[in-house]
Amino acid sequence: MPGVRPASPDQAALLSELVERRLLIETGVPGVYGRGGDFEDVRERVAALVTRAGGDEEPEQLRFPPVMSRHDLETVGYLKSFPHLAGSIFAFTGSEGQAAEQYERASRHEDWSEFQGMTDLVLTPAACYPVYPAIAARGPLPAGGVTIDAGSSYVFRHEPSGDPARLQIFHQREIVRIGEPETVQAWRDLWRNRAVELLGAIGLQVQLEIATDPFFGRSGRMLAASQREQQLKFEVVTQIAGPEPTAVASFNYHQDHFTSAYGIRLADGAEAHTACLGFGLERITIALFREHGLDIQAWPTDVRDRLWER
Amino acid sequence: MPGVRPASPDQAALLSELVERRLLIETGVPGVYGRGGDFEDVRERVAALVTRAGGDEEPEQLRFPPVMSRHDLETVGYLKSFPHLAGSIFAFTGSEGQAAEQYERASRHEDWSEFQGMTDLVLTPAACYPVYPAIAARGPLPAGGVTIDAGSSYVFRHEPSGDPARLQIFHQREIVRIGEPETVQAWRDLWRNRAVELLGAIGLQVQLEIATDPFFGRSGRMLAASQREQQLKFEVVTQIAGPEPTAVASFNYHQDHFTSAYGIRLADGAEAHTACLGFGLERITIALFREHGLDIQAWPTDVRDRLWER
Repeated sequence: MPGVRPASPDQAALLSELVERRLLIETGVPGVYGRGGDFEDVRERVAALVTRAGGDEEPEQLRFPPVMSRHDLETVGYLKSFPHLAGSIFAFTGSEGQAAEQYERASRHEDWSEFQGMTDLVLTPAACYPVYPAIAARGPLPAGGVTIDAGSSYVFRHEPSGDPARLQIFHQREIVRIGEPETVQAWRDLWRNRAVELLGAIGLQVQLEIATDPFFGRSGRMLAASQREQQLKFEVVTQIAGPEPTAVASFNYHQDHFTSAYGIRLADGAEAHTACLGFGLERITIALFREHGLDIQAWPTDVRDRLWER
Repeated sequence: MPGVRPASPDQAALLSELVERRLLIETGVPGVYGRGGDFEDVRERVAALVTRAGGDEEPEQLRFPPVMSRHDLETVGYLKSFPHLAGSIFAFTGSEGQAAEQYERASRHEDWSEFQGMTDLVLTPAACYPVYPAIAARGPLPAGGVTIDAGSSYVFRHEPSGDPARLQIFHQREIVRIGEPETVQAWRDLWRNRAVELLGAIGLQVQLEIATDPFFGRSGRMLAASQREQQLKFEVVTQIAGPEPTAVASFNYHQDHFTSAYGIRLADGAEAHTACLGFGLERITIALFREHGLDIQAWPTDVRDRLWER
């Protein structure tokens, strides 16, 4: 297993404060925390802010669980780009005797992996991944394509870190647009500007940047260079803790990556394109606590009004 | 891997109806579904009904993700009782060359399990499991113990089935009571009666039954007999589809199972006991669609008023 990425001093201090205040609850595993009531309240209000901002688009509501079909992950080539981040699900496959041996080892906290076999499931790495096969199964898109609100979905990235803003399991607030290339690009561009406004209005100092995904290995560096050159990914970043700003939202134009994998076509039979946006809800929540303090009752009135409005 | 438990004809018909109506979205894996907007609306209203019913207890709000510490699962002996239901999380551990080989195999949908190694994480098997170590870390309980509302948490059970009411990943609406033995038993008994009222008021025909957990193997049969004799587990059941009623809520007295594992003590140093309740939100939601029809606008007024009240 890879080591844990160490926290910078201010990241470690921020985590301590959040834990001390019971906003985050330690579990013994870096990057995996429980959440206290105030943390969840803010996280849900940020999610609702995004819902209100996108309400006029009348997106179709779909929700997917934090595990998905392994076959689908294989189909879209996730293991080419991000083998280091994927989580696969294993389960017991043996006899009663093997179960007893597995239990004995586990109760001594020794290795019981040999009794586990791969299942049909993996952890969902991004909230939009299960959307594409679900839409593909319906046949050609309706005229104008579709907008899918995938809600606030738990996603997994295997990157243990001491930075409280780099979690292994966190909520992405995700919306997906599938349609003609120009349509989905315009939608992506609209939302990246809207996100800057939304996050600015709740008191975060944010910037929009051209970005790249954390592709794996040497070939990944070429993928990243191509992605940057084509301006396929934008991120909204803000300073939380650590030497660099942290991405809190991303706006991604996938071209035909998902539509060619699943054969998603426009109403007239031409190839559709996709774009998605994701708000990192825990990162935004932590940024808000960092900016406005740990007592939500004492937050600025305009921020409270914006978040808790109905 | 174990086979998929086949659906009875009426279970298969119910699943088809739910999928046809886009209330459930198929993913290619039995027991793993996306959820449409109306399904989620009902599920969240059922969760809110439980919240309102328990509001007077002013529980502390804690939320935990769908993955938890493997060490904690080992500590509480889950693999003794339920090795067949556990899901463990594996991840990639190799070189760039191995990543390339893993990707090649995965893109042909062949076996790539040899490149995956066990991580520190498992899927959360019950929403209350992460609560106990979190409370233990605080030291002795305050006078009167604690009541923890663990919200609606995704939990995993590796039991693929064609029955739409037997999911591999679903939401438990869970509340936990930790305190003196008499206190937690009285709380458990109060809630099992309250649940019968709550579910009856939204039009479900329910019954309260003494129940057992699905313990593994031969020794499991003895555990189940002992559990039944001591009346440690009650379930509220209702007829959904299939030959037998389906459990939709459970009320569990754990005695010192969790408190002895984590050393949770009362304020005076005596050993605490625990109880928990869990409402199976998807099962209740499916039972409501089965009972009142697939169009929520056409549900009986009193049911709608009860669910959508503010």
